[in-house]
Amino acid sequence: MSDEHSQTPAGPSEGGTSVPLSDGRIVISVDAMGGDRGPAAVVAGIARSAKKNPRVAFILHGNAADLKRLVNRRKHLRGRCEIRDAKDTVKMTDKPSQVVRHGRDTSMWSTLESVRNGEATVAVSCGNTGALMALSMIRLRKLPGVNRPAIAVLWPSRNPSGFNVMLDVGADVRADEDDLLQFALMGASYARNGMAIEHPRIGLLNVGTEENKGRAELKSAHDMIEAAAPNAGFEFVGFVEGGDIPGDSCDVIVTDGFTGNVAIKTGEGTAKLIGDLLKEAFKFSPLSRIAALLALTSMRRLQKRIDPRRVNGGVFLGLNGTVVKSHGSADATGVAAAVKLAFQLAQKDLANKIKARVASATVPEQDAAAVTKVAE
Amino acid sequence: MSDEHSQTPAGPSEGGTSVPLSDGRIVISVDAMGGDRGPAAVVAGIARSAKKNPRVAFILHGNAADLKRLVNRRKHLRGRCEIRDAKDTVKMTDKPSQVVRHGRDTSMWSTLESVRNGEATVAVSCGNTGALMALSMIRLRKLPGVNRPAIAVLWPSRNPSGFNVMLDVGADVRADEDDLLQFALMGASYARNGMAIEHPRIGLLNVGTEENKGRAELKSAHDMIEAAAPNAGFEFVGFVEGGDIPGDSCDVIVTDGFTGNVAIKTGEGTAKLIGDLLKEAFKFSPLSRIAALLALTSMRRLQKRIDPRRVNGGVFLGLNGTVVKSHGSADATGVAAAVKLAFQLAQKDLANKIKARVASATVPEQDAAAVTKVAE
Repeated sequence: MSDEHSQTPAGPSEGGTSVPLSDGRIVISVDAMGGDRGPAAVVAGIARSAKKNPRVAFILHGNAADLKRLVNRRKHLRGRCEIRDAKDTVKMTDKPSQVVRHGRDTSMWSTLESVRNGEATVAVSCGNTGALMALSMIRLRKLPGVNRPAIAVLWPSRNPSGFNVMLDVGADVRADEDDLLQFALMGASYARNGMAIEHPRIGLLNVGTEENKGRAELKSAHDMIEAAAPNAGFEFVGFVEGGDIPGDSCDVIVTDGFTGNVAIKTGEGTAKLIGDLLKEAFKFSPLSRIAALLALTSMRRLQKRIDPRRVNGGVFLGLNGTVVKSHGSADATGVAAAVKLAFQLAQKDLANKIKARVASATVPEQDAAAVTKVAE
Repeated sequence: MSDEHSQTPAGPSEGGTSVPLSDGRIVISVDAMGGDRGPAAVVAGIARSAKKNPRVAFILHGNAADLKRLVNRRKHLRGRCEIRDAKDTVKMTDKPSQVVRHGRDTSMWSTLESVRNGEATVAVSCGNTGALMALSMIRLRKLPGVNRPAIAVLWPSRNPSGFNVMLDVGADVRADEDDLLQFALMGASYARNGMAIEHPRIGLLNVGTEENKGRAELKSAHDMIEAAAPNAGFEFVGFVEGGDIPGDSCDVIVTDGFTGNVAIKTGEGTAKLIGDLLKEAFKFSPLSRIAALLALTSMRRLQKRIDPRRVNGGVFLGLNGTVVKSHGSADATGVAAAVKLAFQLAQKDLANKIKARVASATVPEQDAAAVTKVAE
């Protein structure tokens, strides 16, 4: 019935759909430069992905000589990683506006170009977030009907999947009621395709759960999202609070980019503080050192669950093509996590599904059925 | 030099200054009702405070018969706890506007009345936050020159004190640049008097630390706080991010009540999730159960550090008198933590110091010296 439940694999077509290359592999376009740990960490990460997943292939962008040397050492990348030379690198300190104007020779630009021209469906970069968003906006362009693209992250939660989706976490510092509705639609598609949640529960972030609380645009957004829910295949649970972000009252948390950005950074910082205090606590006495040794496997199991490197992929939604932004400080584990997510989203053809969702929610109701049909 | 460094104890005077009663004790006005655990938890909490601190005394508000019975069981409260009968209790579900209109017989109203008439300097309540704020505004009134009172909380951090101050965390859902400047002044006074940080470092919460980032009102507030810093005895570190809330880059984080509320609830929820996952991890295998036993003291040390009950006191600043809002779910430990904070702030006469600070920052510069002199 729904466009997103179709089992037919998407064939190659105009920019944005998945492109099965040699042996039906899905191609991910990867920016090798611009991360804090340099191209070696990126190549180590994609090699790890290639080993685990025989169906993934890469177009890798950056200094060709360096990359060739790094890639040749990895047997799992043999025949599955094309290298594209790019002279320049976007630095963490570069201003987005300058990168947009003068960044044509950067690895970031080249990475997005492979998505723009249809060679890959999803791009991955550890580089400068602001520059990546600005370049994505002008090179990939917004999906028809999308006003403000958003960055979505996965956040550790009490849900069975272990995660919640939150958006926007920083594509822009503001969002009005129309934007918040679109975030709800995009977030629901992401949860469905990236996390296999058929009928995701959406919550709108506020300072209380009563319907009369919060800012004016939130009250309007509340009613708009509620009205859109039945046709868009999600459940609207109403207002949620900060405590619900790591909770299990919903699967997707919708908020503006300012609030979302502060919330995830506060959560990350708090988790990291607790981790460090825990290490200190275990160093306190000889007895606690022994306890720490015994507790090692328990602790590793926990760390795997809350490790920020494993929820590494911030995803840009609402563009012609999907962009996965990895942490600047991502190591091989972080890059591999971002690639894994990129692969899933490419496989499910997320961008085109969001396109259909937004179209069917913004056209008058009587036309919605027709739009859905076209998208199928 | 500064009003806040004066060592002279404040004498009794018109409403708002500390009131040493019998044996020079400092009197705290406590709402016994309205918390999730009822008056027994409150009485247990103040009894714990009384045992630890011989200089504290209480006026306790609520159902007199019940309270008499509870108080009589606690020897440390003997002769140090006056009971005021109040027929009604503000419920968690009551609307603030209704409490303001019809709440004259509630224990919350009575609690604030003791501060209003000068019998106590600081009030403590575990009740409905919205109602407490609304009642505090109309019964205690805003300090002259204060536009928007704020709720400040202590948040576990990497600083030597173990905590940062953050405000506003929910007195209101918005704040313009003038409000943010006043929050900086009030937060600095709170850090100085509640945490003994002579020259606090203030940060303004944003989505990046670059000066061109964020919303328009934040850019204005940035410049205003920077300009006020030299005369107001704090250091302005500029923009900070969510990760700095549990960090050590500043002592006081200034933000609007919407963002602050979401941030602390996200941080609390994340900390609680990690705690629960940790417990689970330790239950996983027989070996990890043994490890858990050995690790118990380390874990308790850690829990004491990050326990939300110990950072329980949200403080209403900018009123004629200070109000400490304890969590609705506070147990005896939580109530005792709130009373400890209330005692410190009463002892330091915080409200009058904030009054002088705000006055000297809002009058033209040439008059500022005179105002400071008057306040000394």
